[in-house]
Amino acid sequence: MTEWSTDGVFVDTLASPSLTDPVMIEGLPGVGNVGALVVEHLLEELEPTLCARITSEHLPPQVMIDADGLAQLPSLEIHAVSIEGRDLLCVSGEQQATNPVGHYRLTTAVLDIAASFDVSTIYALGGVPTGELSADPAIVGAVSNESLREPAEAVGVDFREREPKGGILGISGLLLGLGGERGFDVTCLMGETSGYLVDPTSASAVLSVLEAWIGFDVSYDRLDARAEAMKPVVQQVQQLQEGDAEPAGGDDLRYID
Amino acid sequence: MTEWSTDGVFVDTLASPSLTDPVMIEGLPGVGNVGALVVEHLLEELEPTLCARITSEHLPPQVMIDADGLAQLPSLEIHAVSIEGRDLLCVSGEQQATNPVGHYRLTTAVLDIAASFDVSTIYALGGVPTGELSADPAIVGAVSNESLREPAEAVGVDFREREPKGGILGISGLLLGLGGERGFDVTCLMGETSGYLVDPTSASAVLSVLEAWIGFDVSYDRLDARAEAMKPVVQQVQQLQEGDAEPAGGDDLRYID
Amino acid sequence: MTEWSTDGVFVDTLASPSLTDPVMIEGLPGVGNVGALVVEHLLEELEPTLCARITSEHLPPQVMIDADGLAQLPSLEIHAVSIEGRDLLCVSGEQQATNPVGHYRLTTAVLDIAASFDVSTIYALGGVPTGELSADPAIVGAVSNESLREPAEAVGVDFREREPKGGILGISGLLLGLGGERGFDVTCLMGETSGYLVDPTSASAVLSVLEAWIGFDVSYDRLDARAEAMKPVVQQVQQLQEGDAEPAGGDDLRYID
Amino acid sequence: MTEWSTDGVFVDTLASPSLTDPVMIEGLPGVGNVGALVVEHLLEELEPTLCARITSEHLPPQVMIDADGLAQLPSLEIHAVSIEGRDLLCVSGEQQATNPVGHYRLTTAVLDIAASFDVSTIYALGGVPTGELSADPAIVGAVSNESLREPAEAVGVDFREREPKGGILGISGLLLGLGGERGFDVTCLMGETSGYLVDPTSASAVLSVLEAWIGFDVSYDRLDARAEAMKPVVQQVQQLQEGDAEPAGGDDLRYID
Repeated sequence: MTEWSTDGVFVDTLASPSLTDPVMIEGLPGVGNVGALVVEHLLEELEPTLCARITSEHLPPQVMIDADGLAQLPSLEIHAVSIEGRDLLCVSGEQQATNPVGHYRLTTAVLDIAASFDVSTIYALGGVPTGELSADPAIVGAVSNESLREPAEAVGVDFREREPKGGILGISGLLLGLGGERGFDVTCLMGETSGYLVDPTSASAVLSVLEAWIGFDVSYDRLDARAEAMKPVVQQVQQLQEGDAEPAGGDDLRYID
Repeated sequence: MTEWSTDGVFVDTLASPSLTDPVMIEGLPGVGNVGALVVEHLLEELEPTLCARITSEHLPPQVMIDADGLAQLPSLEIHAVSIEGRDLLCVSGEQQATNPVGHYRLTTAVLDIAASFDVSTIYALGGVPTGELSADPAIVGAVSNESLREPAEAVGVDFREREPKGGILGISGLLLGLGGERGFDVTCLMGETSGYLVDPTSASAVLSVLEAWIGFDVSYDRLDARAEAMKPVVQQVQQLQEGDAEPAGGDDLRYID
Repeated sequence: MTEWSTDGVFVDTLASPSLTDPVMIEGLPGVGNVGALVVEHLLEELEPTLCARITSEHLPPQVMIDADGLAQLPSLEIHAVSIEGRDLLCVSGEQQATNPVGHYRLTTAVLDIAASFDVSTIYALGGVPTGELSADPAIVGAVSNESLREPAEAVGVDFREREPKGGILGISGLLLGLGGERGFDVTCLMGETSGYLVDPTSASAVLSVLEAWIGFDVSYDRLDARAEAMKPVVQQVQQLQEGDAEPAGGDDLRYID
Repeated sequence: MTEWSTDGVFVDTLASPSLTDPVMIEGLPGVGNVGALVVEHLLEELEPTLCARITSEHLPPQVMIDADGLAQLPSLEIHAVSIEGRDLLCVSGEQQATNPVGHYRLTTAVLDIAASFDVSTIYALGGVPTGELSADPAIVGAVSNESLREPAEAVGVDFREREPKGGILGISGLLLGLGGERGFDVTCLMGETSGYLVDPTSASAVLSVLEAWIGFDVSYDRLDARAEAMKPVVQQVQQLQEGDAEPAGGDDLRYID
């Protein structure tokens, strides 16, 4: 096994709860924001404990301003949540690395935290763009080792040869790649999504696969409400697509949250 | 607290005056040059002592030539000035970092200097682009911790949810982000400005807020003269805007100093 | 001799077979995929032993998904193969470095492996774009020292003043440059190729030069079959070129494998 | 004084001749190739000894192929030449750094070599683009300290406020900036040049200033021959300019050597 660097990546440990066989679930921003929606949903529905915060020179050199005028330094956060006796470690954040080397180093820091909690199983969540709106999105999978295919297929995950064609980029991809090298069981679950709208429907589909696999039940109310709120936009886009026309205000509809 | 690197950043300490509870004020080039105008004004009006000069591999690989044909290596400068018993540490310079990592490292070096002078309060000055000329610009604020909102609002600073939308980039943003992490009280004061002209009027507005907050009075003559000198350009732009036309020589009018 | 860094490059040694005077042959993706086709062909025809795998922060931050849904971390691989008493060390991979510094460091790691096997001779394989389809491509050479020209010319390699005009980029180029500095005998063999189609014909031409020089015989069946499979595409392109017209679906024909 | 890094820069010392009060002259490729033409001319006219060769991860990751098919790793070279009892150290090369940090590190390595030879005076040669062809180009100067202006003006060097406007980039600029910080007397001599042709006439003008300042005489025959060879191109461009027309084959005429 090789030793990857975490130079320029800084981990603040804020809590070290005792967890039983925890599973790590990563959902950073990406296609359709699918992965981020799932993890945000878990953090909203359950009672999260902030265990660690990762800041880095390799994250964007800026702060975002919150609703109270407070500046937020870019970071990844690791929260522990517990549901029906299952311990989950959720990885969330608003940004990814600014450069290729940074992706490797941030991923290594996340894996170091996973190791410190004796995590053996990691789920990296995301979306796979199809260019089409779908009411019933399939979940496409990719795995770090062959033994994970059978349990994935048992809960309805699709495996498709050499897809996504362009590979999987950023931290989700490297959790599979570097995590696999370090002996973690890593599965990437990607909900089909149009690619041009935030997609709570796809997020629900990913969440249901995750529930079936790990074994827990969480309320879908908030995700359902988000999907409901998106409906007028979705319908407008569908009408425009059926009319084979470009949506008039296309740009404005993108990624409405 | 995490340990951020200053690799590739070099600090020359040139003077170590004994200062009483000094406040740091940063004004580097940016939108409307508002922050830089304020800090340059303080350095012109008062009697500055150059305390430290920061050079770095992360600043642009070039020199500028001054009025005497002398080459100037890019640098940030820290000057001490004193006014009515208040000690100020001014951060000025002509350039920012060439890469994201450099922004983090230069900001860390500035904070190290602040710490060496026992600074507890930092003001990062800048502009926020509105796309419109204004004779009475508001001052928008962002803070590193909640306790700073009340005193800011008391001197007329506006707080707006999640604004500026794109966050605050570069050293001003990271002074808030990294400075906050290190326990400094950091406020960013951003004068509304068109975004396409150097704006001494906005700079005066920022300066008056700063004076009220810190408690000092400085002459505005030079800033007023600069604003006066800009008037013909401003009027020309206003006429063109009212006529809903693009300024004929628009490019040439931008950032006239 | 200078000490070049391999920071951020990780070598996993997987086997250390005892080899007799092994020759290193590098074929990474590039113009017409010529070099990669030759090395892949050798690995398919012979019985390769995976000796080392190189992963790096300087390779793309992503994984590719294989036919089984397994994630593949970008890497360079070093395989040993044996043919008619000749030991060969083949360097293959699907990607190159993401940045200039990375090219230097990955090349240094490859040369370190070459040194560990007491390699003295290295062949870097590639294509040189001509803009024209050719049934009988010439092989253009470049060498790390003058003594290599005579044996190269003896097996039909062309030397052309200051060609390729833009130099030789990436690992092939640096194997020549850095390898030469370290005392290796390095020859770059570049098959003429159109530059807009994967070119098994050019690969066969490079392979035959290599066979004549090193002294071995390998079946060409698979490369011939690949060339045969390309024929309809090649003919279509030829007809379009003779008609002095742009191929209708030109973009779609590029790099059909 | 600050300690600048030379990480990733490698110096091979090849000869250490004993030199008397040597002057360093840098001429790397740039505007009109003026600086490079002067230094190449000195190396051709005199008998150079190669003292040091600088290679680096921060130079382009490629090799160029010479007239004999030999691969050349990018490098900077330091040659000693002697003329009329004056010892000169010439800095030449075909490329500059690929990134900002690299410019700082390569310049630092050059200054370290200058220091090792007890150099106190450095001339950085280049061109300043005027957009116009001139038979009698002026020489524009920039200096690292004020005491250099008088001797420069004594040999006809022009000083112009804040020119060149965009500053001086790359190694020439940083020799002034970093060299000045380290106590070297550095002058940049920039020959006026059109900016779109290689300019041996401007190079001759720079050379004559250099000769007058340092005190030596070298034959101009080769530079004159080069200028003569350029005449048809220059005349063609002049005719086209006088006709106020764009040169028909303008692109093809650029940088004909």
